[in-house]
Amino acid sequence: MELVRIGMIGLGNMGTGHAKYLINKEVKGAVLTAVCEPRPDRLEWARENLGPDVQLFENLEEFLSSGAMDGVLIATPHYDHPDVAIRAFQHGLHVLCEKPAGVYTKQVREMNTAAAASGKVFSMMYNQRTNPLYTKLKDLVSSGELGEVRRTNWIITNWYRSQSYYDSGGWRATWAGEGGGVLINQDPHQLDLWQWTIDMMPKRVRAFCYFGKHRDIEVEDDVTAFVEYENGATGLFVTTTGEAPGTNRFELSGDRGKIVVEDGKLTFWRLRQSEREFNQTFRGGFGSPECWKCEIPIEGQETGHKGITQNWVDAILNGTPLVAPGEEGIKGLMLSNAMLLSTWTDNWVDLPIDEELFYHHLQEKIKTSKAKKNEAYRTFEV
Amino acid sequence: MELVRIGMIGLGNMGTGHAKYLINKEVKGAVLTAVCEPRPDRLEWARENLGPDVQLFENLEEFLSSGAMDGVLIATPHYDHPDVAIRAFQHGLHVLCEKPAGVYTKQVREMNTAAAASGKVFSMMYNQRTNPLYTKLKDLVSSGELGEVRRTNWIITNWYRSQSYYDSGGWRATWAGEGGGVLINQDPHQLDLWQWTIDMMPKRVRAFCYFGKHRDIEVEDDVTAFVEYENGATGLFVTTTGEAPGTNRFELSGDRGKIVVEDGKLTFWRLRQSEREFNQTFRGGFGSPECWKCEIPIEGQETGHKGITQNWVDAILNGTPLVAPGEEGIKGLMLSNAMLLSTWTDNWVDLPIDEELFYHHLQEKIKTSKAKKNEAYRTFEV
Repeated sequence: MELVRIGMIGLGNMGTGHAKYLINKEVKGAVLTAVCEPRPDRLEWARENLGPDVQLFENLEEFLSSGAMDGVLIATPHYDHPDVAIRAFQHGLHVLCEKPAGVYTKQVREMNTAAAASGKVFSMMYNQRTNPLYTKLKDLVSSGELGEVRRTNWIITNWYRSQSYYDSGGWRATWAGEGGGVLINQDPHQLDLWQWTIDMMPKRVRAFCYFGKHRDIEVEDDVTAFVEYENGATGLFVTTTGEAPGTNRFELSGDRGKIVVEDGKLTFWRLRQSEREFNQTFRGGFGSPECWKCEIPIEGQETGHKGITQNWVDAILNGTPLVAPGEEGIKGLMLSNAMLLSTWTDNWVDLPIDEELFYHHLQEKIKTSKAKKNEAYRTFEV
Repeated sequence: MELVRIGMIGLGNMGTGHAKYLINKEVKGAVLTAVCEPRPDRLEWARENLGPDVQLFENLEEFLSSGAMDGVLIATPHYDHPDVAIRAFQHGLHVLCEKPAGVYTKQVREMNTAAAASGKVFSMMYNQRTNPLYTKLKDLVSSGELGEVRRTNWIITNWYRSQSYYDSGGWRATWAGEGGGVLINQDPHQLDLWQWTIDMMPKRVRAFCYFGKHRDIEVEDDVTAFVEYENGATGLFVTTTGEAPGTNRFELSGDRGKIVVEDGKLTFWRLRQSEREFNQTFRGGFGSPECWKCEIPIEGQETGHKGITQNWVDAILNGTPLVAPGEEGIKGLMLSNAMLLSTWTDNWVDLPIDEELFYHHLQEKIKTSKAKKNEAYRTFEV
């Protein structure tokens, strides 16, 4: 294969963006050959803007069976991601999926199984994994510069959303429509980076979610989550859409000092000697290890969605390692599912979570949801 | 009365400091007339350094009955604060007490009752209440500049203590000796300021304390506490003695913006229009209120212990309002007791706490404590 033929599924905000850079040939080795979209107005947009070489489909099954593409880029509503991906794998297609991986891990686990069975290249649109702030952070942790991680506090409260934003679509911020609030809609990147940069998942979670606290919505719009890791480290994840201006500050503490990522900068307070070593040898009263404030250079740019699509295409053509393997999408989702479950049960939740229990709770929420999944939201008959 | 005669109880680190500025006449209207201290070496120091006009006592009852003073400054170990204060009130003496107010609120409540019955001037050594960073913060909150408070996150992890610090005294970091760890020994000022600056106590607490996590000690050296307030606001208090360099960052979010106190600076991200008002009138998609980053001037100096002693003396002589009324010492202690109780019961704790239950748990800890309260620690036969 010299050129990967890509089929685009969904022409909402995200899908339209993907289609544009693909049609402009901004991804090497890739060509947009088909689009699937059930909404007439979006299909009309495609007809006018994507040219005669792109086949247009309303029906997903016809699209997947058309033979018009080698891989699909999925940009449907959240709930559909796993179902659509599974069907694509069954048709022998490579898959690049928008985040979140899905709404509940049970569903995403089935997607991962289908991906593994297919042997196709599966990637997740975690473009923030190319953000040099976080690649540098991951570098400092994995290379041992920070030492063993002891604390990970992420305050990510700068996702301000007004009531008018929520009112702009009947499916928004509903259990049936989107399957959650700030965790599923705004935080997928941070939930991924939180565990990806340190290469550790928590072992248990105690979270405090508030539903419709700041806005007239049924899902969570304010969350504080406390986690414990296997090595004894602890962490916090604080998020909301209800505060202005909010904060985006990720602080990590380790045996060799402290890192803060904030305002586009990464600052490393580096201990000259590890804390453990200092503690073992110090014989005085109030002393502490010598500490250097280091401003760490951040070079390069986040490559954005295009960069992840390029990486996926390169993986298909040349076996390039994936930046964001699709199977890893379950990790961030597991964290957000665990936070909701901990709130609903008002108790600790061990990881991996009880997926059936979460699914059961979610179904209860969907039953009483203001948005009816099948009417207001679902765009594909999968 | 033109001159308040002060008796100093305890000549440890703190008491010695108080005695020095008093003997140097750095507090107007006050004179040091007596000292009570059971340790021969400290009494010898007093004999050599405080001059012939200061009466020296080994026995607390003789000291309190001597008629040598109008008020006492208590700088004994924590457990003794309430007992000594109660006896001083019973002798008709004014009291200025070192923080913490005590180790458990049940005991401190008795102290407050005795204070009220005595009609004497009772103050707590909360010198950080004179720190212009926090008086300015309190000003911005109480004047309405910040708007209704919605979140209060204090990360106070820069209390580094090595094992050798803990090993320097057998009573240190023991249940019988000090009655707790980082909460009772390092954090009293922050626990006071956390509620004093916003004039709100939480309504319930869910905390996660770790005991001897970083050091070979029996008490808590790592705490993350989540709180809810009556108005729906939430907060976090994160503290440890085991990290270097640690952080001291107090972030408050309100209806009119956000305040961060860190690195000796107070920054106010001020919304031009309140968030509530913006949300009610905004009709677009992703907008947020206009926000100004304001660097707030911090003028003056923290007056230190001397300033609080001066204020107490002024209150005795002229009825000057107290900066830190003694009765308020129970608030910060209530928070730290609640955090321990929440951990011991692995559950929420409503405020005010069940004081008998906390006392019961504490007694259990004392029973198995490595330090024996009566042998290793207690310096006064109260």
